[in-house]
This record gives sequence, structure tokens and C-alpha cells, in this order.
Amino acid sequence: MAFLLSSGADSVGLLLNILLVFGAAKLLAEVAEILGQPGVVGELLAGVLIGPSVLGWVAPNELLNVFSELGVMFLLFQVGMGLKDFKLTQVGWDAVLIAVSGVIVPFIMGRQIMLMLGHPGVEAAFVGAAMVATSVGITAKVLADMGLLSVRSSKLILAAAIIDDVLGLLVLAVVSSTAKGPLNYLDLGLTAVLAIGFTLVVAIFGTRAFEKIVPRFDSATKTAKSQFILSMLLLFGLSILASRAGVAAIIGAFLAGMALASSVSHETKSETAGVTELLVPFFLVGIGMRMDLTVFRDPGTLTMCGLILAAAILSKLIGCGIGAWRLGYRGALRVGTGMVPRGEVGMVVAQIGAGMGVIPNDVFAVVVFMSIATTMIAPVMLKMAYRGAVAE
Amino acid sequence: MAFLLSSGADSVGLLLNILLVFGAAKLLAEVAEILGQPGVVGELLAGVLIGPSVLGWVAPNELLNVFSELGVMFLLFQVGMGLKDFKLTQVGWDAVLIAVSGVIVPFIMGRQIMLMLGHPGVEAAFVGAAMVATSVGITAKVLADMGLLSVRSSKLILAAAIIDDVLGLLVLAVVSSTAKGPLNYLDLGLTAVLAIGFTLVVAIFGTRAFEKIVPRFDSATKTAKSQFILSMLLLFGLSILASRAGVAAIIGAFLAGMALASSVSHETKSETAGVTELLVPFFLVGIGMRMDLTVFRDPGTLTMCGLILAAAILSKLIGCGIGAWRLGYRGALRVGTGMVPRGEVGMVVAQIGAGMGVIPNDVFAVVVFMSIATTMIAPVMLKMAYRGAVAE
Repeated sequence: MAFLLSSGADSVGLLLNILLVFGAAKLLAEVAEILGQPGVVGELLAGVLIGPSVLGWVAPNELLNVFSELGVMFLLFQVGMGLKDFKLTQVGWDAVLIAVSGVIVPFIMGRQIMLMLGHPGVEAAFVGAAMVATSVGITAKVLADMGLLSVRSSKLILAAAIIDDVLGLLVLAVVSSTAKGPLNYLDLGLTAVLAIGFTLVVAIFGTRAFEKIVPRFDSATKTAKSQFILSMLLLFGLSILASRAGVAAIIGAFLAGMALASSVSHETKSETAGVTELLVPFFLVGIGMRMDLTVFRDPGTLTMCGLILAAAILSKLIGCGIGAWRLGYRGALRVGTGMVPRGEVGMVVAQIGAGMGVIPNDVFAVVVFMSIATTMIAPVMLKMAYRGAVAE
Repeated sequence: MAFLLSSGADSVGLLLNILLVFGAAKLLAEVAEILGQPGVVGELLAGVLIGPSVLGWVAPNELLNVFSELGVMFLLFQVGMGLKDFKLTQVGWDAVLIAVSGVIVPFIMGRQIMLMLGHPGVEAAFVGAAMVATSVGITAKVLADMGLLSVRSSKLILAAAIIDDVLGLLVLAVVSSTAKGPLNYLDLGLTAVLAIGFTLVVAIFGTRAFEKIVPRFDSATKTAKSQFILSMLLLFGLSILASRAGVAAIIGAFLAGMALASSVSHETKSETAGVTELLVPFFLVGIGMRMDLTVFRDPGTLTMCGLILAAAILSKLIGCGIGAWRLGYRGALRVGTGMVPRGEVGMVVAQIGAGMGVIPNDVFAVVVFMSIATTMIAPVMLKMAYRGAVAE
């Protein structure tokens, strides 16, 4: 007997919220699949549908935010776990090239459009910075659902997205520093070294270390499910360390998954997959929920919206495509498409700008729209770009 | 790239909280196992240790509460899923007998002690009501860890605890109604009928229905992991319905697990087990965290504490033991011991009383202490009572 959940109306409200978000996401994912579209698109649309913009059944709240953050962490963790023979250092220079040109082109295009439209320089720089971001979670989920994570272009996308994270961080640091005053080069250099150092150390030594640690931990402990426990400790530990080192927590989660990929059992992977499966809809619905359709009412904003969205898609296709020219036309197209979604990342850059008071409301709405629209278009484009691809 | 988790200090704080609670729970569970004690005791003690009473590293907060509520729900869900050939109606009358005498004896003993100590009638009735509660999650986890859930006495404990839930609900309804004014018999009758009806309908028809639904759902859907999705929808759906019907949400969760026990795949069970494994420590640590050791400072309160704790243990051993006399001495002892933990349930009854202004601070502290102490003692007693037991 427990009155804990039966007495408080709050508790029932909480459960209803969870059921509604999870149920709507999975229902629309099913509809999307029936129509030949990626399930991810359905889950994003579920967020638009039940969110404040259309039905208003659920609004963003703190609990959904927490579930959403944990959801994208587990998503990247699971993606990392699925990469058994992936070495970040092997795809090396190609990935660096893709990331660098995929940062420069979108930043310049976004900034120029805003300047052309007559917006001040700081504002234009922030929009450019928001267009640099790549939300690798969406692409990873689509490719994982298609069973194509082990294809060379998929591995390149993942590696480039990680480097992109570090570069994007530096771009944001520069943009927000110049908005405040003169640039502190020492701070900037320190951030870069720490972020790159952390990523490289874990990527290079992680897998080898855990191939030794996991069997020993297993035989030394008396508690059941010790591999699962170790996995969770590593996941949360590395996510925290990544945040502290200046990279995103999800990069830590991805590296944790990669480090464990070749050492934990199938059972443990199923157990973590359950958590992932439960939480990911909150991440996707959470993005869709933030879509603000009223942006379309003002013709000026609508124009800005169209230009920025087109530039967001084209700039990544061109920028990353140039970086990936060695893969041939189709390979370059795949890599470019995979880097299109901006997801929650573009929104956060906009949020920082708005918080500093340098981004007005309409520009904020446009950046959020761009972030979500690229996220919803990319899976459809990816499915076309990867048509005919076979797991290697 | 995602700044979502790297920018906000709140997000890192959240991850640290999760890592600390989960890590401390699993570390002390390991220590407990090494000392030959149930892991559950270690996880409860971890809560006492890192909570406000000793180290003060974590305090109860809303997020931990949510995780804790979901944790006990998944725990009961998993327990239900583990019962493949369990029919609630088969253990029928024995369980009813155990539940009824296990409700009457603790209520009378608790109430009498408080009256003897000179407390007013309403206060005494609330303490009695708090002693009626059984927190079946703890017992279920200990028995599941020992692999003894399928033993007859274990099944009786589970069935009796469910009936106990309905009875306890009615006792609380009566006690809090009389504290407010004259009793409304119609309301009370309606609550009883709804609660009993819901439980019986799901228990009797659930398993058979899902043996037909699961394979059809599996073949009709295109989305991956459809069994897991169905399980989650049923879990949250029945938990909400149970709350609405007047029983606790965890009873709905348990019934959902039972309904799916014989129809979902091993893979699906592993996936849900992952979620359970991640969340249950929050439930156990959450209970330990609420232990208030300052209760011992006042000699009068200390006496009350000792008397109530002794009565809480003895009354369930005697009450449930009488109901289970047909199982012989050892069987009756096992059943009685299994019903000892009051867990979060006793605390919630005390909270309702305090909220109504009829329970003073010292009595509140004593009831909370009794709830936690019984929960920590029961696993140790259970391990002794079940010594030599073999899975049937």
C-alpha cells in the first residue's frame, strides 16, 4: 500500500504528462513509419501538435526539461555503445575538414543575411553562431533506426559533429565575449585546450581501459547487474566531466558509450536501451513543443525565416559537402545532410543571446524556428540521401 | 553539439545529484552484500548517510521525489512481470485473512499505546492507521534478489499486501473523515467498491487479454521495440487508473506487470529491468534520507519511539502470523516478517494527519522513524526467516 502516488493530485498529473508525451510520440512515430517517413519526424510533430502552438495539452515544464536532457544523453550514450569498432582517431583529418568548413560557411552565410536585412553586427554574429551548431542526436537516431551507423559516411558525421561541438563552443565564446567587451585570448585558449584534451584522452584510451576494467569489476562485485551499474556511473561521471571541461555533457555521454561498446554484455545493452527508449521521446517532443507558429504572421519576419532556413540547410550541405568531397557526390551529400539538424543547440545559442539582451524577440523566434525546422527536414532528407545504402 | 547541458550550472547540479544518489546507494549495497546483509539495507543506509541527518550532501527535492515515485512504480511493475504463473485469485482467502488480521492488530496496538501515553483519540487513531500500512516494494525486492518470489509464502505476501492496500485506504478514509466530522458511509462504500472492483477486474482478465493483445500489437506495428512501448503505455495507464479508482498507483503498476508477465519477450523484460535498476535507488535513498535522528534527544519521545517501533514489528508478526497459521510456524513467520516494512506509506499517513493539524511534531517524527526503522529491519529479518528456503 502506498498513498504516495494516490493522494497527491500532482503525482497523477505527472503520470498523465508522461503518458501523454510518450503515447503521442509513439503514435505519430508509427504514423510516420506507415507513410514511409522516419519515426523521428513523427515524434517531433507530436511535440508541435500537443504543445502550446496547436492543441496546448502540454507546455514545457521543468520535469519535461529534465527528462529531455537525460533523453538526449542516453541517446548519444546508446549511439556510442552501438559503435563497436569505431575509432575516433581513424576518421581523423577528414572529420576535422568537414567540421571546419561546416562551421565557417554557415557562420558567414547567416551573418551576411542578417547584415543584408539591416540588423546590427552583434545580432548578426549571434545568428551566425546559432547556425554553426549541429544536433547530432537526431541524425544518429535516424541512422541507427536504419541500421546504417557503421557506414563510413555515418562515422564521419559522428566524428565531425563532435569536433563541431568544440568549434561551435569556441565560436559562441568569441561571439558572446565580443558582445560584452574586448576578447580574452588566454581564457579562450584554455577552454580550447581543455575541451580538445578531454575528448582526445577519453576517445583514445577509453575503450582499451574498459576492456580491462569491465571483466574485473564483474568478478570483484557481489551486487547483481554490476555491468549496468558501472555503465551508469561512467555515463553520469563522464557527462559531468565533459561539462566541466567545457564540452557538452552529451559528448561525455557519447564517449562513455564508445568506451563500453566492446566490453559490456548484450544484456547490459538491452537494459540501457530500455532507459533510452523511455526517455528519447521527451527529447524529441520537447523540441517540437517549442515551435512557435505565430512567427508566420508578420511578413517581414516570415521573409527572414525563409532566408535563414534556406541558408541553414544550404550552408551545411555546401560547407560539409566541400569537406567531404573525397567521398564522391553521394557521400558528400550524405555527410552534408547529416549535419543539417540544429535541434536544441541552435535554440540554446539564441537563448544566450536573448539573455544578454542583444537578440530581439523576432530574431529569437526565427532562430528557434530554424533550429526546429532543420531538425524536422533533415530526417526526411537523410532517408533520401541514404537510399540504397547497405550496412558495411 | 549541445550547450543545453553544458551551459546551465543547474544541469550539472542535476547530474551530480543523480550520480551521488545512485553511486552511494550501489556502493553501500555492495558493502551490505559483503557483510551478508540484503543490498536494500545498504541503499536505505546510503540515504541516511548522505541525507540531512548525517552528511547533508543531498536534501529531499522535487526531482528526487519524482524519481523516487517512478522508482517504486517500476519496482512493483518488475515484480509483477516476474510472476509468470501467479494468479491473485488462487491465493484468495488465505491472503484476505492475512490482510484483515494484519490490519486489525496493528491498528488496535498502535492506538492503545498512544492512548496509554495520554495522547488524544484522533492522534492515536492516526498513529494506528499509519501502522496498518505495508510497503510491499521492499519485501518484494529482497525476495526477488534472493530468487524466492515464486515460493508460496512470497506469493501470499504479495497478494495480502495488495488487499492490505485497499483496507489501509479505507482505514485512512475513516480516520481522516472522523477527524473532520461525521462519517459519510456512501462515499466510503463507493471508494471500497471502486478500489476492489478495479483490482479484481485487472487481476482476473489482464493476463488473458494481453496474451492475445501482445502478439497482435507486435505484428501490426512498424515501430521498433513495440512490446516495450506497449508495456510502458500499460504501466502508466494502469497506474493512473488505479489512482483514480482510489488504490495506489503502484498497485496499478504491479497489476500491469502481472498482466504482461507471460506475454512479453525476455528482451522486453531486460529493457524494463534497466529502467527499474536505474530508478529504484532513488526510492530507497529517498526513504533513508527522511530519517530524523534528532528524535532521540528527548527522553519522552524516545520512549514513545521504542514502544511504537516494537509494536509495529510485533503487531504485524502476530496479526499476519495468525492469518497465515495454516502455513505452519515457519511459513507464518515469513509472511509476518514480509509485512513488517511500512516504508513511504506510513510516512504519507503521518503527513496527511500533520496536514490536517491533528498530529503534533513529535508524534510525526516518531511515525516517520517507525516507518523507516521497520523498513530497515525487515530485510535483515526476512533473510533470517527465509534461511533454507528453496525456489519451488
